[in-house]
Amino acid sequence: MASIPYKIFLSENEIPKQWLNLRAAMKNKPAPMLDPETKQPVTFEQLQRVFCDELARQELNETDLYIDIPEGIIDFYKMFRPSPTIRAYNLERELGTPAHIYYKYEGANTSGSHKLNSAVAQVYYAKEQGITSLTTETGAGQWGTALAMASAFYGVDLTVYMVKGSAMQKPHRKEVIRTFGAEVIPSPSMTTEVGRRINEKFPNTTGSLGCAISEAVEKATTTENCRYVLGSVMNHVLLHQSIIGLEAKAALQKYGVYPDIVIGCAGGGSNLGGLIAPFAVDKINGTHNPEFLAVEPSSCPSLTRGSFVYDYGDTGHMTPLIKMYTLGSEYIPASSHAGGLRYHGMNSVVSQLYDDGLMKATSYKQTEVFDAATTFAKVEGILPAPESSHAIRAAMDEALRCKETGEEKVILFGLTGTGYFDMPAYEQVNNGTMTDYVPTDDEIKKSIESLPKF
Amino acid sequence: MASIPYKIFLSENEIPKQWLNLRAAMKNKPAPMLDPETKQPVTFEQLQRVFCDELARQELNETDLYIDIPEGIIDFYKMFRPSPTIRAYNLERELGTPAHIYYKYEGANTSGSHKLNSAVAQVYYAKEQGITSLTTETGAGQWGTALAMASAFYGVDLTVYMVKGSAMQKPHRKEVIRTFGAEVIPSPSMTTEVGRRINEKFPNTTGSLGCAISEAVEKATTTENCRYVLGSVMNHVLLHQSIIGLEAKAALQKYGVYPDIVIGCAGGGSNLGGLIAPFAVDKINGTHNPEFLAVEPSSCPSLTRGSFVYDYGDTGHMTPLIKMYTLGSEYIPASSHAGGLRYHGMNSVVSQLYDDGLMKATSYKQTEVFDAATTFAKVEGILPAPESSHAIRAAMDEALRCKETGEEKVILFGLTGTGYFDMPAYEQVNNGTMTDYVPTDDEIKKSIESLPKF
Repeated sequence: MASIPYKIFLSENEIPKQWLNLRAAMKNKPAPMLDPETKQPVTFEQLQRVFCDELARQELNETDLYIDIPEGIIDFYKMFRPSPTIRAYNLERELGTPAHIYYKYEGANTSGSHKLNSAVAQVYYAKEQGITSLTTETGAGQWGTALAMASAFYGVDLTVYMVKGSAMQKPHRKEVIRTFGAEVIPSPSMTTEVGRRINEKFPNTTGSLGCAISEAVEKATTTENCRYVLGSVMNHVLLHQSIIGLEAKAALQKYGVYPDIVIGCAGGGSNLGGLIAPFAVDKINGTHNPEFLAVEPSSCPSLTRGSFVYDYGDTGHMTPLIKMYTLGSEYIPASSHAGGLRYHGMNSVVSQLYDDGLMKATSYKQTEVFDAATTFAKVEGILPAPESSHAIRAAMDEALRCKETGEEKVILFGLTGTGYFDMPAYEQVNNGTMTDYVPTDDEIKKSIESLPKF
Repeated sequence: MASIPYKIFLSENEIPKQWLNLRAAMKNKPAPMLDPETKQPVTFEQLQRVFCDELARQELNETDLYIDIPEGIIDFYKMFRPSPTIRAYNLERELGTPAHIYYKYEGANTSGSHKLNSAVAQVYYAKEQGITSLTTETGAGQWGTALAMASAFYGVDLTVYMVKGSAMQKPHRKEVIRTFGAEVIPSPSMTTEVGRRINEKFPNTTGSLGCAISEAVEKATTTENCRYVLGSVMNHVLLHQSIIGLEAKAALQKYGVYPDIVIGCAGGGSNLGGLIAPFAVDKINGTHNPEFLAVEPSSCPSLTRGSFVYDYGDTGHMTPLIKMYTLGSEYIPASSHAGGLRYHGMNSVVSQLYDDGLMKATSYKQTEVFDAATTFAKVEGILPAPESSHAIRAAMDEALRCKETGEEKVILFGLTGTGYFDMPAYEQVNNGTMTDYVPTDDEIKKSIESLPKF
């Protein structure tokens, strides 16, 4: 076996030709989305009012394990994929661990994260269907950037509702999105009915992904030939993100390596679900038995402290009901620097796997996360996004446990993005002024109790 | 011949084991640096007071065509090299040109530019020699970031004098440098004698690379066990940057491609000199006849409008005299968004090649440059640095000329870095408020006439 290089690159021809639909392999399928009026499973026809047709089809597809990636999407993928799978030799040395640490690095494209994997697919399908404009929400701004890049490339108009807190923290991120030709509106805004309602109810809110989703959906459903696209939570997004796991598995396979534990940060769940997809299929089929670990912020702990119930996907209650781990759709997470993880719920596939005991979850405070981020940057030479740094923190802790036990575990984690637009957060670290927020049990209980009962 | 992929990656084992010392191949060597007092060539002993020994040796070495890269440097290179050579298929289609456009992309590391190539080497040699602290200057912040990364990795203290204009335009860039543990001081500062003198003479100055160099040199020569390191202009920096050209040549060779023209942006000249190095050796030896094009900002046109004379490398006149194209060492370029190109002079190798007619030069206004940058970002999916965008602009114009003539020229340009920390500049583009400044002939004449005569 050849010695393992720092960066394992697949060739352009090794870009997967099919996405992996994890649901098709699950014995216990996630519960269907429900229409809030009828309490019946949502139909293709209902979804297609909001999403373009192919995405609606993919959203409901729980039978095909593999779904072909169109040539027009692969052509865009070639501009930034395959992404490297990196052996963290320097981090291992820094920690003095016998563990072997690998990370799949999705940050080396201009959008700065894995979000581009799904953005390309979603804009491609919209364009094919003759859709002329799209709306979306963005938290940390990574999804908005990715979608702006894809929209510029395929020639589709784009309006981005950006969580107000992130828009204030990251004015430069906003300019990147504008540079690619999209319009950026801080959310909650006064441009939609739901935005005006939320602003009235919570006058000083810094917004949330849930609010921004409501605004984008309203705009899409009230504008001609317009559709809504979403960067996480949905099953079709998880499907597109399976390319992360597929490439990582193929890269490791070249050197006869298989992970003992796969770690990913979890906001809406798409990166985590995509990373673990092929390994989870192996686990379900019984060919391997890797562990999976979801890492969330203590300020927004949907898996570790939420409830597994039917809830709305958005704060404005415009979406179908999703059976998921949730803190309650009206829960507005405290402002934190991991804007991409400030979502009240969790993708239904990830939720189901977690509820079935196929996945573990843990949470960290942001000061703990940034400690890990800074160490990682210094030894691995990559400045990580706050979101991704949750996975780094957990991987480091796992490696330190191996140091105590002497285990040579193979750890794989997802490094979803870079922190170039998170410097105000790092500035707080540099100045020693970063603080933490952990919701009380009462706050969470109250938020869950306010949920509609189904 | 296999079809050419979007990105040509070399394997880790193909990282060059030696740098290429272009000077050794030049028939007309650049004139030696002179001691301003004695007017004699500077000696190793003089250089070694400012630079660490190995760099002083490399600076004076004009006989060895190849110089071994130590294993300890290659180990760091493996974290971010080889960098990809990219075929700009989408840009070619956008322009409708028969030209084949390639670019060597040096921006996919955390420092965001090619600067890391030399930073790693310089800190490595300092550490080997037992130096405990380093000083440097930074313009756009790319060099400061690169050096902070290398200093964090090897465990050496670092003080960065950052051009005041850049520090104001790029507060986030400053925080990246601090995140890697370095101290950042806006220049001209009140912490050095030369800084205080410059502040008194030009009270509202936004600084320049020349000023910042003076401050860093003063600090290095007045601090124990401290050395100065420089990100451009010097011949040893050009030497380290030859890895860009060596990799690009090896990548193209795999597909039987040789460039007809090689284009690079030119500030101090190190990226350009490094990119063209192996091709220039071929040209000098007569085995190939590629064209070379240096691209500068109209606001700081040292090659296109400067004089080829002996001048100081810095504004404070603390450095040796260098025979180079210069606008005069007291020339303070107008504030512009290409901070990394705001230098009054030009590396002596590049200057000599230009003077000997082996290289051409051109200049662009920043609005022209950002037009190209925005188009490039939309079709190639990479947000370029303003500095790098000068090369993009020239490459696009060359490709458009090919469209008129029908020539299938092979164009290779250097994409030195990303624009993530240049969003205030892109914001001006997005808002239509960017302006240009071109110095008058009188201004340049006056600046040159004020030079000391040798």
